[in-house]
Amino acid sequence: MRLSRFFLPVLKETPTEAQIVSHRLMLRAGMIRQEAAGIYAWLPLGFRVLKKVEQVVREEMDRAGAIELLMPTLQLADLWRESGRYDAYGPEMLRIKDRHERELLYGPTNEEMITEIFRAYVKSYKSLPLNLYHMQWKFRDEQRPRFGVMRGREFYMKDAYSFDLDEAGARRAYNRMFIAYLNAFARLGLKAVPMRADTGPIGGDLSHEFIVLAETGESQVFCHGDLVEMGAPGPDVDWDGDLQPLVDRRTSLYAATEEMHDPARFEREVPADRRLSARGIEVGHIFYFGEKYSAPMRAVVTGPDGQDRPVQMGSYGIGVSRLLGAIIEASHDAAGVIWPDGVAPFGLGVVNLKPGDPAVDTACERAYAALSAAGLEPLYDDTFERAGAKFATMDLIGLPWQLVIGPKGTAAGEVELKRRATGQRETLSLEAALSRLTAKA
Amino acid sequence: MRLSRFFLPVLKETPTEAQIVSHRLMLRAGMIRQEAAGIYAWLPLGFRVLKKVEQVVREEMDRAGAIELLMPTLQLADLWRESGRYDAYGPEMLRIKDRHERELLYGPTNEEMITEIFRAYVKSYKSLPLNLYHMQWKFRDEQRPRFGVMRGREFYMKDAYSFDLDEAGARRAYNRMFIAYLNAFARLGLKAVPMRADTGPIGGDLSHEFIVLAETGESQVFCHGDLVEMGAPGPDVDWDGDLQPLVDRRTSLYAATEEMHDPARFEREVPADRRLSARGIEVGHIFYFGEKYSAPMRAVVTGPDGQDRPVQMGSYGIGVSRLLGAIIEASHDAAGVIWPDGVAPFGLGVVNLKPGDPAVDTACERAYAALSAAGLEPLYDDTFERAGAKFATMDLIGLPWQLVIGPKGTAAGEVELKRRATGQRETLSLEAALSRLTAKA
Repeated sequence: MRLSRFFLPVLKETPTEAQIVSHRLMLRAGMIRQEAAGIYAWLPLGFRVLKKVEQVVREEMDRAGAIELLMPTLQLADLWRESGRYDAYGPEMLRIKDRHERELLYGPTNEEMITEIFRAYVKSYKSLPLNLYHMQWKFRDEQRPRFGVMRGREFYMKDAYSFDLDEAGARRAYNRMFIAYLNAFARLGLKAVPMRADTGPIGGDLSHEFIVLAETGESQVFCHGDLVEMGAPGPDVDWDGDLQPLVDRRTSLYAATEEMHDPARFEREVPADRRLSARGIEVGHIFYFGEKYSAPMRAVVTGPDGQDRPVQMGSYGIGVSRLLGAIIEASHDAAGVIWPDGVAPFGLGVVNLKPGDPAVDTACERAYAALSAAGLEPLYDDTFERAGAKFATMDLIGLPWQLVIGPKGTAAGEVELKRRATGQRETLSLEAALSRLTAKA
Repeated sequence: MRLSRFFLPVLKETPTEAQIVSHRLMLRAGMIRQEAAGIYAWLPLGFRVLKKVEQVVREEMDRAGAIELLMPTLQLADLWRESGRYDAYGPEMLRIKDRHERELLYGPTNEEMITEIFRAYVKSYKSLPLNLYHMQWKFRDEQRPRFGVMRGREFYMKDAYSFDLDEAGARRAYNRMFIAYLNAFARLGLKAVPMRADTGPIGGDLSHEFIVLAETGESQVFCHGDLVEMGAPGPDVDWDGDLQPLVDRRTSLYAATEEMHDPARFEREVPADRRLSARGIEVGHIFYFGEKYSAPMRAVVTGPDGQDRPVQMGSYGIGVSRLLGAIIEASHDAAGVIWPDGVAPFGLGVVNLKPGDPAVDTACERAYAALSAAGLEPLYDDTFERAGAKFATMDLIGLPWQLVIGPKGTAAGEVELKRRATGQRETLSLEAALSRLTAKA
């Protein structure tokens, strides 16, 4: 993409309304624009990151055997009356009447609708296990929306729903999502710690939150330090096999959010030098809730014994739009965002220090063509801004690499390659830079 | 994808509520499920096609230089008061009040919001031309939603908005979209004819609808037969150059929707044997409306002469979810859907006629692995359904090819390859079938 043809409205001033760094940087980098309280437009740069994050989440869901579909944003109130949640949900539910005075709502989550879909088609245990997920805009009418996309009202969520014949099956489904979540967050460059959690309005028996540690986190969390350093299991686990040991290895270590924290147990179970108390950001939440929806909504399956029973369900959420804020909170410096390679909006920036200079233009066009062909998605700054502003913008938007091409270097057969995360710079030939970069592709 | 792990709830009976073939087939093939009047869930098969269609539209927008972003579904009523459309829009606009009694609406289109975004950041002609687009769910509260996704209430639309300094620039932007639309529809396997149209509630001076001809079309259209046969210009046009001749070649031929039809002109301009009168389905609509929104909303840019003037705008819509219905209306037979190659939910089906037979299973697994590795996205029917039901399902869901592997053929070293569109079958070795299929990838 040529910057002269892109739409990247970076702000010079720091917006005063933003209280946390991710919100400030997303506004300054031209990623989002607030259109109403807690309702954002995703400008082209922010949109590109949103799609990258979505794709990582999708790939890890697919790998774990979940099947993607897409439910609508609006739902019938009557559907929520079946589960009893319509009256229970409170003012965070956006209730709507259409032209015929029929009661609708903007879905804050989809347990009822997916249960309705399931019961319409699935009658036998032979169709199980099943895990259906979608990524769709949701709405929760927060009393005080704030922190940009971290606590918005219209937000983008991945929610998966598992269906199993019995508790053992449901636990296997839960474990698959547990592992898939660790893998997804690791690919997003995040250290996410699973913590036993309260089940809240979703209900159920078993629940974990996945918490990213960041100084600016919204809540206090407590855990064993080993949990933070433990890597994700990776894609090559046996998804049809027994994942319980992988899960146990993590859940056996102490980890709790503030609501679940037991100071005495923390001190008893965790050696003093491994006790970690930190701020955290919730990025995922998984639930096993059994028959909570299937029983009242009569989603039953016939078992091998010929008996009907309510299907065992769980649900599994990832705040996709919120993740962008969490990634920035965990990865930035004074100059701007530092995107992990896997979700950067462009693979690198090519900075032309003197557009109009034929030698520089030629070198830049060569680099741009080669990097594009290699699938690296370069952003080519071909504008007439001064060099200082170009560097500031590149640092602000946080692409992993910057390839800087100017008249002096071109005369000497040299370009500069800068790694955004470390600030490390290297002078080398254009050929060498291109082979280095395209070797990664 | 293994069918045993997929979620494909095909219906044996023809749903009685569906009046048109695309609606019937989408329900029968397990592509969609109605969740409320005119509000659909996209089941996994339908979702896959929706994503393919979306991607074709995206690629053709990007190629024409449009930049993607994403605006939210909900908008402030006050924004629509600025243009005067809040009161004018009527009962099709879904009006909402949040917990603080603030007036919102579910966006039926985004002229106001994109104008607000533009005016916040763009001040000079130097940032032009600019074309911003998004694909997002919209809502229009139709009095009588019907025909499935063809006239739903919650629907998925691609809407692009162009910004130019003057009318000449705006016309170039209009022409780029005109050509991009022809290319997109051609890739979707559709013959879409541009027709001069009424501008309706969007307003403006110049407008074309793109109409797919289908017997079940919602309205009568009249055009010169050459227009239907004329191919799309293709991707290799000079997007920065003068596209007017390509546009003129089409707009010089008579084509009109019922509202714009002039029988006398039709007979005068079109030879009798080239006069085509047919039913049509609108799949796209483009508008040039100049200052209609930029003037009242004060979206001004400074020209090279230092003078401020309202920016010249156009908007360009494609009904992405509706396109699925249109494609099916144009491409089906008595047995089911016939997907054009470019949007098929899976590249082909592999039908195992005797799961559990070691030789057949081995052949099927080999085919499945090779076809998957080639990126052909096979759907492998590994279920224990009887052969007749498997064939019926494959025909119903309309994958372009069926590779049928059974015990007799396997013993003889043979498989059967069927082309869905023609019904043509060929018996050949598995090797030959695989090389034939993967050569296409």
